[in-house]
Amino acid sequence: MNEIKDITKRDVDFAKWYTDVVTKANLVDYSSVKGSMIICPYGYAIWEQMQNVLDRMFKETGHENVQMPMFIPESLLNVEKDHVAGFAPEVAWVTHGGKDKLEERLCVRPTSEVLFCDYYKKIIKSYRDLPKLYNQWCTIVRWEKATRPFLRSREILWQEGHTMHATSKEALEETIKMLHVYEDFQKNYLAIPVLVGKKTDKEKFAGAEASYSLEAMMYDGVALQNGTSHYFGNGFAKAFGIEFLNKENKLETPYQTSWGVTTRMIGALIMVHGDDHGLVIPPKIAPTKVVIIPIGTTSEVEEATNNLIATLKANDISYKVDNSNKTPGYKFADAEVKGYPARIEIGPRDLSEGLVTIVRRDTLEKVRVPKDEIVSSLTTIFDNMQHDMYEKALKRRDSMIYDAKTYEEFTEIATTKPGFIKTNWCGDVACENKIKDDFSMKSRCLIEDEEITGPCVCCGKTAKYRLYFGRQY
Amino acid sequence: MNEIKDITKRDVDFAKWYTDVVTKANLVDYSSVKGSMIICPYGYAIWEQMQNVLDRMFKETGHENVQMPMFIPESLLNVEKDHVAGFAPEVAWVTHGGKDKLEERLCVRPTSEVLFCDYYKKIIKSYRDLPKLYNQWCTIVRWEKATRPFLRSREILWQEGHTMHATSKEALEETIKMLHVYEDFQKNYLAIPVLVGKKTDKEKFAGAEASYSLEAMMYDGVALQNGTSHYFGNGFAKAFGIEFLNKENKLETPYQTSWGVTTRMIGALIMVHGDDHGLVIPPKIAPTKVVIIPIGTTSEVEEATNNLIATLKANDISYKVDNSNKTPGYKFADAEVKGYPARIEIGPRDLSEGLVTIVRRDTLEKVRVPKDEIVSSLTTIFDNMQHDMYEKALKRRDSMIYDAKTYEEFTEIATTKPGFIKTNWCGDVACENKIKDDFSMKSRCLIEDEEITGPCVCCGKTAKYRLYFGRQY
Repeated sequence: MNEIKDITKRDVDFAKWYTDVVTKANLVDYSSVKGSMIICPYGYAIWEQMQNVLDRMFKETGHENVQMPMFIPESLLNVEKDHVAGFAPEVAWVTHGGKDKLEERLCVRPTSEVLFCDYYKKIIKSYRDLPKLYNQWCTIVRWEKATRPFLRSREILWQEGHTMHATSKEALEETIKMLHVYEDFQKNYLAIPVLVGKKTDKEKFAGAEASYSLEAMMYDGVALQNGTSHYFGNGFAKAFGIEFLNKENKLETPYQTSWGVTTRMIGALIMVHGDDHGLVIPPKIAPTKVVIIPIGTTSEVEEATNNLIATLKANDISYKVDNSNKTPGYKFADAEVKGYPARIEIGPRDLSEGLVTIVRRDTLEKVRVPKDEIVSSLTTIFDNMQHDMYEKALKRRDSMIYDAKTYEEFTEIATTKPGFIKTNWCGDVACENKIKDDFSMKSRCLIEDEEITGPCVCCGKTAKYRLYFGRQY
Repeated sequence: MNEIKDITKRDVDFAKWYTDVVTKANLVDYSSVKGSMIICPYGYAIWEQMQNVLDRMFKETGHENVQMPMFIPESLLNVEKDHVAGFAPEVAWVTHGGKDKLEERLCVRPTSEVLFCDYYKKIIKSYRDLPKLYNQWCTIVRWEKATRPFLRSREILWQEGHTMHATSKEALEETIKMLHVYEDFQKNYLAIPVLVGKKTDKEKFAGAEASYSLEAMMYDGVALQNGTSHYFGNGFAKAFGIEFLNKENKLETPYQTSWGVTTRMIGALIMVHGDDHGLVIPPKIAPTKVVIIPIGTTSEVEEATNNLIATLKANDISYKVDNSNKTPGYKFADAEVKGYPARIEIGPRDLSEGLVTIVRRDTLEKVRVPKDEIVSSLTTIFDNMQHDMYEKALKRRDSMIYDAKTYEEFTEIATTKPGFIKTNWCGDVACENKIKDDFSMKSRCLIEDEEITGPCVCCGKTAKYRLYFGRQY
């Protein structure tokens, strides 16, 4: 292993900093399977934390987990035309089972709308069968050319919710409800501020009537789409012939949603909160909240360490003890690169005064606290850290959102400043395309509760929307 | 949905009974993807319970979760010769990504030994890097021709532990330790008695030096291999060129294990404990321990239901309320087919005496208990049920294990009685093959702590082992 301290400075080369952090914190490793990454124990533990919290939130909102097949026969993928057009170019095709050529080739699911529709057709017969509120945790495959750990990969770990409803109103409500579940999670657990809004028609999901997204801004001002929630109307349901008898005993077609988040959120966590020392994990999502670093091996240090372990266990605070044969300096650096919210140094000098040293990761602030006040100190540190990390990220993000009223202003900002640009937009895809072509900036999302402040930033015609632009991962 | 009561009698047609139970209890459904099943919410909830308990056990024994790629390049699968010979005939091959033909085809992992070895080669350099104790939860694919829900499927949900150790002794200890973790889980949570022992060379895993298995007996006397733990020696490690510097600074090759259990365990749960009314789920693994069935809609019933819900919540007892528009008779039958450990009937007649009725699923025994004694009654019921289910399964299994000293005895038993036959065996695969050919009975496992009681059951030569035979799923 290279020296932990050898992390490229964040402001010098952000891309290299990112790669250094994910590898030195042991989140992922490269495999000899092109385009696929290995998620190492610490990276996977973060994903497990995310899964635990989200899974509870999904269940509390009435959703149930299922597991659908991972293969989609080509004919099934072909049922909905927009959908297949969007996904067929990027799927992996299975053509042989053992030595035999398959009669029909199968793709590895890139997403599971058609599998759920195929199933829903079978089990939805009456209004009493609705709503169906299913979710699955699984791996999907999209045949990406260029990949980056957590951000773009051929294999993606995610969850996908797929629901069916008797009315379009209910389905739309579900779409928005799950968008806000994600927002709640990202804000209150990941400490990441997100813009939530509707995608333009150009950027919506293949086959959806409306797509909503959560757009986070990374430290470098670049956007990361950090979750989506789609409203399908009854387009898929019609294509699949799904019908139910309503209360008046008449046949109707149900309305559908889907929503998903992926291990990309780990990428966002790194790029929003990380610093020159490595990761910084918000306490509410950290798989290990405290690392204990005993300094020296005296019996006092050992006893204090054992007492602390007992105290942390009793208070249900997750911890690790670094008993490796490294120097304290190495251990401190390792604790920092891993982003544990707090490290506790137990050394003879502190102990002789009845104290230990706690270092808070985001600020690297040190406090010396009496041994019997460790738990209350940690509680305060975790609360403050969770709060401050969100506020800091929010402040930075807001300072990098610009308002452009004219194309000149847009050009000036887009060519000199990283970040998002908010605009007034007429709704014409030609204007959206022009900005994309001129500046490589895609539209992020429409923000409905912002007032329109002038004509279209591009063509000067009457504006109908407030639209955000930004470069993206 | 067909009438719930329409379950084929278990003693009339066991195979049909099984299919009726898995579909009527809504554990799985058939998909239009040939060979793949849909795991429905209730089936998946049982799997989640199994995952939760096992994952805790794995972590308590020092293991960490990771996630490896799901694809294996053909050249990587080919590295270990026995392994590829065993698996190549039954893998799914990906040959195209989008429109492009791949330079090298990839199989969807049928198991991940080679992926872990490829990774371990990269990260194991010194004795300080050992042991590596990794596990992953994932889906694997084996291109089976004939499939049955939970028992044989093209897609299998499972966990696979893969560990590396400095010495063969440590690796063997790990192999046996995890075998006993599984035994503990199956005995104490699933209430399933298992034989644990070594597989014969003929039946061991492709590439392993020794395979150990857990062999459960289903109600019909047929065996279900319900988990395996393999010792690889350093064969794979040598084939992959994995080496580490030992304490004396000399290069050595490490020793390897792998171990796994799958959703098959749900099949075992059904076929060991189920009865003519449907599933019977042991309380310690049941995702829903109690179903509440309000009878009528009087305000007393409603109030008692709400109070009971509050009590169960406060005592952390999982529950469901059946408020559907079905008759009480239908609800009782549904509760039975789903195998909830207890159902509580709340009706006006009982309530007028301050009572509710609790029905224990395995015995269908009814007790009327005072409202304020529900929790203590449930606790007793669950304890007794967990204990009794294991004892009942053990008694039945033991009554169907026969001892055959001669080939005549073996023939007599094998052709007239379902169950396992224990034998003395010389160790020659010819004898093992003869029994397989004559009776379609495969060897289950060698039981090391049983005394040899005579010559080989087949050839009459000196016996070296006690070997169990049985037909299998």
